[in-house]
Amino acid sequence: MGSCCECMKNFFGRQKNTNVRVSLPAVCFVWQIAMIILFGVFIRYDEESDARKWIEHKRDHNITSDIENDFYFRYPSFQDVHVMIFVGFGYLMTFLKRYSFGGVGFNFLIASFGLQWALLMQGWFHSLDPNTGKIYIGVESLINADFCCAGSLIAYGALLGKVSPVQLLVVTLFGITLFAVEEFIILDLLHCRDAGGSMVIHAFGGYYGLAISWVLYRPNLHQSKRLDGSVYHSDLFAMIGTLFLWMFWPSFNSAITDHGDGQHRAAINTYIALASSVLTTVAISSMSQKRGKLDMVHIQNATLAGGVAMGTAAEFMITPYGSLIVGFCCGIISTFGYLFVSPFLEKYLKLQDTCGVHNLHALPGMLGGFVGAIVAAAATESVYSAQGLINTFDFEGEFANRSVGTQGGFQAAGTCVAIAFGLVGGAIVGFILRFPIWGDPADDNCFDDEVYWEVPEDEETIPPVLEYNNHMIHKHQDISESNFSVEQS
Amino acid sequence: MGSCCECMKNFFGRQKNTNVRVSLPAVCFVWQIAMIILFGVFIRYDEESDARKWIEHKRDHNITSDIENDFYFRYPSFQDVHVMIFVGFGYLMTFLKRYSFGGVGFNFLIASFGLQWALLMQGWFHSLDPNTGKIYIGVESLINADFCCAGSLIAYGALLGKVSPVQLLVVTLFGITLFAVEEFIILDLLHCRDAGGSMVIHAFGGYYGLAISWVLYRPNLHQSKRLDGSVYHSDLFAMIGTLFLWMFWPSFNSAITDHGDGQHRAAINTYIALASSVLTTVAISSMSQKRGKLDMVHIQNATLAGGVAMGTAAEFMITPYGSLIVGFCCGIISTFGYLFVSPFLEKYLKLQDTCGVHNLHALPGMLGGFVGAIVAAAATESVYSAQGLINTFDFEGEFANRSVGTQGGFQAAGTCVAIAFGLVGGAIVGFILRFPIWGDPADDNCFDDEVYWEVPEDEETIPPVLEYNNHMIHKHQDISESNFSVEQS
Amino acid sequence: MGSCCECMKNFFGRQKNTNVRVSLPAVCFVWQIAMIILFGVFIRYDEESDARKWIEHKRDHNITSDIENDFYFRYPSFQDVHVMIFVGFGYLMTFLKRYSFGGVGFNFLIASFGLQWALLMQGWFHSLDPNTGKIYIGVESLINADFCCAGSLIAYGALLGKVSPVQLLVVTLFGITLFAVEEFIILDLLHCRDAGGSMVIHAFGGYYGLAISWVLYRPNLHQSKRLDGSVYHSDLFAMIGTLFLWMFWPSFNSAITDHGDGQHRAAINTYIALASSVLTTVAISSMSQKRGKLDMVHIQNATLAGGVAMGTAAEFMITPYGSLIVGFCCGIISTFGYLFVSPFLEKYLKLQDTCGVHNLHALPGMLGGFVGAIVAAAATESVYSAQGLINTFDFEGEFANRSVGTQGGFQAAGTCVAIAFGLVGGAIVGFILRFPIWGDPADDNCFDDEVYWEVPEDEETIPPVLEYNNHMIHKHQDISESNFSVEQS
Repeated sequence: MGSCCECMKNFFGRQKNTNVRVSLPAVCFVWQIAMIILFGVFIRYDEESDARKWIEHKRDHNITSDIENDFYFRYPSFQDVHVMIFVGFGYLMTFLKRYSFGGVGFNFLIASFGLQWALLMQGWFHSLDPNTGKIYIGVESLINADFCCAGSLIAYGALLGKVSPVQLLVVTLFGITLFAVEEFIILDLLHCRDAGGSMVIHAFGGYYGLAISWVLYRPNLHQSKRLDGSVYHSDLFAMIGTLFLWMFWPSFNSAITDHGDGQHRAAINTYIALASSVLTTVAISSMSQKRGKLDMVHIQNATLAGGVAMGTAAEFMITPYGSLIVGFCCGIISTFGYLFVSPFLEKYLKLQDTCGVHNLHALPGMLGGFVGAIVAAAATESVYSAQGLINTFDFEGEFANRSVGTQGGFQAAGTCVAIAFGLVGGAIVGFILRFPIWGDPADDNCFDDEVYWEVPEDEETIPPVLEYNNHMIHKHQDISESNFSVEQS
Repeated sequence: MGSCCECMKNFFGRQKNTNVRVSLPAVCFVWQIAMIILFGVFIRYDEESDARKWIEHKRDHNITSDIENDFYFRYPSFQDVHVMIFVGFGYLMTFLKRYSFGGVGFNFLIASFGLQWALLMQGWFHSLDPNTGKIYIGVESLINADFCCAGSLIAYGALLGKVSPVQLLVVTLFGITLFAVEEFIILDLLHCRDAGGSMVIHAFGGYYGLAISWVLYRPNLHQSKRLDGSVYHSDLFAMIGTLFLWMFWPSFNSAITDHGDGQHRAAINTYIALASSVLTTVAISSMSQKRGKLDMVHIQNATLAGGVAMGTAAEFMITPYGSLIVGFCCGIISTFGYLFVSPFLEKYLKLQDTCGVHNLHALPGMLGGFVGAIVAAAATESVYSAQGLINTFDFEGEFANRSVGTQGGFQAAGTCVAIAFGLVGGAIVGFILRFPIWGDPADDNCFDDEVYWEVPEDEETIPPVLEYNNHMIHKHQDISESNFSVEQS
Repeated sequence: MGSCCECMKNFFGRQKNTNVRVSLPAVCFVWQIAMIILFGVFIRYDEESDARKWIEHKRDHNITSDIENDFYFRYPSFQDVHVMIFVGFGYLMTFLKRYSFGGVGFNFLIASFGLQWALLMQGWFHSLDPNTGKIYIGVESLINADFCCAGSLIAYGALLGKVSPVQLLVVTLFGITLFAVEEFIILDLLHCRDAGGSMVIHAFGGYYGLAISWVLYRPNLHQSKRLDGSVYHSDLFAMIGTLFLWMFWPSFNSAITDHGDGQHRAAINTYIALASSVLTTVAISSMSQKRGKLDMVHIQNATLAGGVAMGTAAEFMITPYGSLIVGFCCGIISTFGYLFVSPFLEKYLKLQDTCGVHNLHALPGMLGGFVGAIVAAAATESVYSAQGLINTFDFEGEFANRSVGTQGGFQAAGTCVAIAFGLVGGAIVGFILRFPIWGDPADDNCFDDEVYWEVPEDEETIPPVLEYNNHMIHKHQDISESNFSVEQS
């Protein structure tokens, strides 16, 4: 039966060549060498991580203690974000019964490449020093690079199991590039605030992945249906991802907000919103199933929707009960998405979304953008104080005279920009990925680690009959097996 | 056999209706809406997380740097505690072979509801501003809310696999309420110190769960015996929980202690005590088994006893070797508990304690309370300095003249209060849970995720006989099967 | 077959007695009691964790805020390091199909004993106060103790599955002792810098383990070949270890570097180097396999090589692209090690290295030592500033006049010292471990948790034939079994 399996693979393999033995190493080496050259030309330590400059900086700014180094404000949050990117996103994508290596492994590959390219792209757009032509990096740059990867990892969620690692590196290259551009437009030109990235990360990343998946529609994906589901232990691995995302989301939304009250408030708001999402997710999940049974897909995903939707508003004075309301609604909306919208998208829009990123990222991200717009427009001096408004919305320089109402309008516009970038960029990248050179799997070969990984032989995976025979032959040669063995051969 | 299984379920299901399709969503929605209303009325940002107030606070207190915000003192510890609550407690309860979804999933539900209710309850009792009638929250409130949940999660450990999610929400509602009251009595009225909660969290939570479990005694629980155990991989999932609890326990015990030396010392003491517990747990576990084999139950649980027992004394000057001694003793006591006390309780006291919370929380928590009392009573000015004594024991205001001996007495009294609240409160809640409306499982249906979860079909879960026959029927219909069976027998 | 298995075990067991029921508890108790006594004699809180001394320290140094306590500089990094030691190393060693309990469990035991002994050994060598005869500990001591354990855990990687827990405790006792001595020579006498321990931790630990393994060579280890491999889910558990090591390595390399720019720079450099390692590991792994498939062994291990190799240089001004180059090369070298060097070592040098610590720790650690030497020798005042050079290389006191060139030479010498200590110390410890009193497993019994653990009966592990028969005998004794198939269908 092993050989039979092999034979069927070869048969279908004729249509698709999944051999990446040349392309994958080539892409990795070329891009990594490019990174080394570009880092050599452009990237330097900033004034807080450079041995000479930190001494000068302390002297120039009358700083008496090293604790004022931005490292101590941001590093704990950075590490939490880092865990979310690699363990959170990675393990969340291990839920498929036989694509867990691909889930966590390709996530690892994408993020490791993406963060390097992000340091460059974000540096060119946000922090290139015009005098020296250099990009100066510190801990905040690392956080931003991780954020930038999140966009591409979200897109991976929609493509999980259906693309090759080479395709994923292409998705990441373009994803990071598009991210840096839309982020520049939204944060710098439109002067939006989006500390936790409802717009720039989640709405963009979600629609980017959905557009790619739409272009790569596989009409015969049902041929892989046997593998498109979880087993008991793969669901438990996925819960590790869910929980690390859920627990560290307050750090995600507060990691690059203002020192002091900004970080503090963003963490509180996110913590509260997430708690609320869990309750409504459980409620809707239970209502939707026979005998009120809970569905692991909902628990693994929709519980996180409150964090996504607080990405923009978390640093504002949304109030604790405002956060609860956002989490309440998003838990419901996201669970309904898994129940009704995903099947609808697949059936009528020909959109196959493996992890349901529409329900977890795209839609809550968009909602989060609009929530941010409303909360910004509703800001008052009595609540924030005059200085607080300036601090929170960064009304300085050319934006010193912007009103909160205008700010709200720009926030809403920013959300639309993020979605547009995701959809258009994703469609273009999708067409690039349709060239038959990338080594993607055949329709009956999706969701299968065997294609790109050396998978250990597992007693559990060998069908009992076969194993039975092996044992028989091995151990019971002395007994009359003639009837049995004959019909097997 | 699948249908046979179904049929048996229906047969026994007649006694118990485990359908929670109405009750679970109803409870979730009603309580979550209540939370929104109560948060709207009562909860506001405190002076360190509010945009206006932080600016005023810095001005009024001559604070020059945002690093003085309590966020930077407490947030790293908060995140560690958060991981303990959701991953630590959650995965520790995945050890059962077929109740891992319930272990980690209901833990998630309980804690998410509990922390909201805790913010309110603890706020009313500890930080309600009498002028404004508002509760002001900051990062320390979040830590306390997580702590408060821990009490109910400990209680869940005793009930694991035997109750419905609706019952668990009831356990949590009352658990949080009782916690806030006993905490008010112990910390505010008796003026005890209990930073890591040996008394208020572990002794209370442990006895609360045991009392509930005692009232809910199931004489025919042996009917579920087939599921009351672990498999290889479920033990590995449980070890994830164990290790995150073990590693972050220094953060747990230091999270809300005094800034500076208090946090520093609490972390060191807990680190040391835990290391010592591991060695004695291994020793006793090995002594107790044939050929010196180790038992995963002990390694997963008793290694943590040192952390529980240091909950009160960690912030005191217990000395490093004092911490070692506490860990040494508690590792032994806790492992003996698993070996002898749990079977005794089940047999003679009719107390079924799934996770052995008696040995991990109740008993070490009680011991920790008394250790704290002794260490407090032994405090001297030569060791702490006069100011150090005031800082450590908070001898200010109406307690300015309390002696350390008196403090020790009150610490011991506080331990008794915690136990009393746990036992009496748990007994009452247990009786409430005996109403036949909560959807709890039948005696032969415990420890089974099938009851409350959509469980994926797993090749591994289908008994081999059935699978064998299925394959036979499917593939060998053409052969005479009578021969086959004969040569097998 | 259960009894057959048992019988074979007894047969081979005659050669080897794996009963540790006396020796393991005895060693644990004796050593833990010794720790208590030695801690009582020697160990005290330092000036930042002592109630009295912190007040005096603040007064004497005009410190106005508790945030200046070293706790707030180091504690987040400490917790990350702690996770690496217990979850990172622990789960990385769960990859074997039936030695996961031993992997994570004995790792837990080793580290818990080791950190206590390390506090003493490192205290005696580095921080014994000559006036009081006491060792004063704070958070930096805890980090150093964890580092010290890492050396012995690396050695365990080479021995995984082939030694008894008693032997491991002996390995740890000597490992910690040797570590403290070589660290004293390298850091204090040679005045090397090695914040992330390329030399003192990785090169030493790696060669220590390899030398022990070489002495304990088992010519008939192939008899355990059936267990010397992974299964699908054990690889996923191992990836948890890999990712936590990978993510927190920036904290590892920056945990004890200079406050301010030192910690900041070390974290950035390590983050960058690790990202680069992932790409080249994937490239070489893919190139080496049929159809470009990735090998989990490489992804789990070689991706970390960049972090190991940056252990010394991370705190220097190696520049971001320098870090990329180090990661680039080490990913390649380490993967080649798994492909070619490990088989070579086993075949020609009779060296069995279960986890391939040669490729992950020994070789990259040695390279890291030399990279550090080169970067140190290339340091200039124009890059660091005069004060920056003094801060970074600690050119104070008797070393005030050392040139960077000299420093480079000493760094290289330090690397050789570490390797020599590892090889010689390991060989001696190996011979000690060959006494037939330690309860190590027989050659056909390696990589098997059954030897030292109570392993739960797992449906999956029982071969279907046996289970089939068991069910037959158990359930159908009353029926004529020739009819059996008939009545099932």
